[in-house]
Amino acid sequence: MDNFSYCSPTRYVFGRGTEEQTGTLTAGMGCRKVLMVYGGGSARRSGLLDRVEASLREAGVEWVELGGIRPNPTDDRVYEGIELCRRKGVDGVLAVGGGSVIDTAKAIAGGVPYDGDFWDFWAGKAVMQTALPVGVVLTIPAAGSEGSGNSVITKLDGMHKISLRTDMALRPRFAVMNPELTFTLPPYQTASGIADMMAHIMERYFTTTAEVETTDRVAEGVLKAIITEAPRVMAEPCNYQARANIMWAGTLAHNGICGCGRREDWTSHGLEHELSAVYGVTHGAGLAVVFPAWMTFMADHNPSKIAQFGHRVFGIPATGDDRTDALSAADALKAFFRSICLPVTLRQLGVEHPDIPLLVKKFHEDKGLPFGPYHPLYPADTEAVYRLML
Amino acid sequence: MDNFSYCSPTRYVFGRGTEEQTGTLTAGMGCRKVLMVYGGGSARRSGLLDRVEASLREAGVEWVELGGIRPNPTDDRVYEGIELCRRKGVDGVLAVGGGSVIDTAKAIAGGVPYDGDFWDFWAGKAVMQTALPVGVVLTIPAAGSEGSGNSVITKLDGMHKISLRTDMALRPRFAVMNPELTFTLPPYQTASGIADMMAHIMERYFTTTAEVETTDRVAEGVLKAIITEAPRVMAEPCNYQARANIMWAGTLAHNGICGCGRREDWTSHGLEHELSAVYGVTHGAGLAVVFPAWMTFMADHNPSKIAQFGHRVFGIPATGDDRTDALSAADALKAFFRSICLPVTLRQLGVEHPDIPLLVKKFHEDKGLPFGPYHPLYPADTEAVYRLML
Repeated sequence: MDNFSYCSPTRYVFGRGTEEQTGTLTAGMGCRKVLMVYGGGSARRSGLLDRVEASLREAGVEWVELGGIRPNPTDDRVYEGIELCRRKGVDGVLAVGGGSVIDTAKAIAGGVPYDGDFWDFWAGKAVMQTALPVGVVLTIPAAGSEGSGNSVITKLDGMHKISLRTDMALRPRFAVMNPELTFTLPPYQTASGIADMMAHIMERYFTTTAEVETTDRVAEGVLKAIITEAPRVMAEPCNYQARANIMWAGTLAHNGICGCGRREDWTSHGLEHELSAVYGVTHGAGLAVVFPAWMTFMADHNPSKIAQFGHRVFGIPATGDDRTDALSAADALKAFFRSICLPVTLRQLGVEHPDIPLLVKKFHEDKGLPFGPYHPLYPADTEAVYRLML
Repeated sequence: MDNFSYCSPTRYVFGRGTEEQTGTLTAGMGCRKVLMVYGGGSARRSGLLDRVEASLREAGVEWVELGGIRPNPTDDRVYEGIELCRRKGVDGVLAVGGGSVIDTAKAIAGGVPYDGDFWDFWAGKAVMQTALPVGVVLTIPAAGSEGSGNSVITKLDGMHKISLRTDMALRPRFAVMNPELTFTLPPYQTASGIADMMAHIMERYFTTTAEVETTDRVAEGVLKAIITEAPRVMAEPCNYQARANIMWAGTLAHNGICGCGRREDWTSHGLEHELSAVYGVTHGAGLAVVFPAWMTFMADHNPSKIAQFGHRVFGIPATGDDRTDALSAADALKAFFRSICLPVTLRQLGVEHPDIPLLVKKFHEDKGLPFGPYHPLYPADTEAVYRLML
């Protein structure tokens, strides 16, 4: 186990009707006027925004709106939000939505008190020390941004999708999590969210750090819960208990508890970020294509932890040969993703003619050369992994 | 799954040499002068207190000492600490030790800013709103107090051992956790700590709340890690990795993550607290006697979750009869405790002639009548459970 420093200060307010606490929680962050960030019209049509606004009004909190945030959120909306906050004298940001909305809200929160270009933080030119307080009303369990200090933004100029990871500055103060808000999520989005949260755990699980049994077992536990609940939630979208277990798993997947004491990997996320940036695919669905391919490649390069994953998470009997078991694990994961109707090839993802050289080039531009803590990828390796997605 | 609100704001600073960060972390709580609470002479003899003091000095933090805190800590030392803090103008409390030291430090921290008798909080006559900030340097992985908002104190008058549970007021700001500091723990104390942390998880696991798969799987994961690492740590007391995994498991066992979304039980802790209060036994060793007896009793009254525990944690094959499987689970747990040289009967615990009527009377005085969220115990039931420990 490696040394670590871990703090997850977000208050999770979980369950039916909890969105009615949004106003009290927002006032409790010391905010008088917030920027309320949201996505498409469904939050308005469903009545959620009305309930959130009523709660803010009751707590004496004013708000300014920034709606229409799209998946794979872009820097232009962040600049717009920062300008709006400054002009309106906003002292906090409230995200009502999923990962894209939350990540945009965080980027705005970090940008407002900063004199320079907010992108400096994402470009690695500055370290974020402070940000406006951020609160969340979660509507999509997937990205885990409600419990993380991270924010993924795509720069329109060059379509670079970059993840910023802060220790504390961007961790939400609270996350309101009502599983009922996820009943209306379409099947594809539900399944993509499941792939995303599983990937968040697996990026941490596939490590070269030895003897991390406690964190391994926590990670395996959350994965097993997801694998149990996923078919239920796909078959019965309004099953509260299944939705609740998936929602909580999505937070544990990414709030850092599954990574304590070890080096993490994040290669598969990097490979997927290029697919999202170039082809606009849904992040979670992209991960369902990328992860089994990466695991298949790793069967020939560093199979042991992938074999352990197969044994412990999918109950695959140990053959004594790690390569064989790692390939079985990759197949089991692929079969699981197929069972919840996710794509497992680039073609199924809607990318008929991928420009693999471009993807490889952009991956190494963004991630460096070589990249891959679990096993370093050079361009020829990266190309091989992308080819396993065909 | 039940609604819940959960926040664990403690920063865990984990690994080799981390005690050297104590000064910086203490200053980071905004403290200029702290009460340093510790136990016996071993912290001084080992050089730990010297290193902590050097770190405080370097960070410009003064300190006042309160040493000699004993197991099953008592209210007299709390009164002494409160008086000392007030007289010396202390603005924070630093605990260097295990659960008894931390719980004493917390009680002092809660008592200093309160006008009345600190025991009011433990007696349920007042609700703690504020406390001095508390930092921890952990030397015994067992009680989990480094990550909890709880404090267990025994009132000398009547020997009532009472646990106070706060949501936030008593959660430590930081916990320095260096597994090397636990290399010298004697085998009996190591094993007792293991029983204590397992009990913390099981008190949360045995619930009547249905469909808590995600939290169940996390709890089972931490239990499995403990069961894997315990024999290693008993055989090789200086095995860093085994000590590290046990130490981290002890925190996860009690910081609340294993209880999210469900009603908890805590009957076994209540039964054990009477044994500690009357006979002065080691808390964890007492739990190793109490828990299998309670599970055996529950095989006849509410076996399902105990059977699931047996299947998932100990890999006991399902027979289709929950009572049979619950009895097997109790036996497996008893065998595990025996394997790490813990007592599993009152006689082995050193209580030759237990005054069971007294224990029953005190249990219901402290806990109410009936008590037991998993299955309510009336005095005849409580007596039956104590008799199963003979």
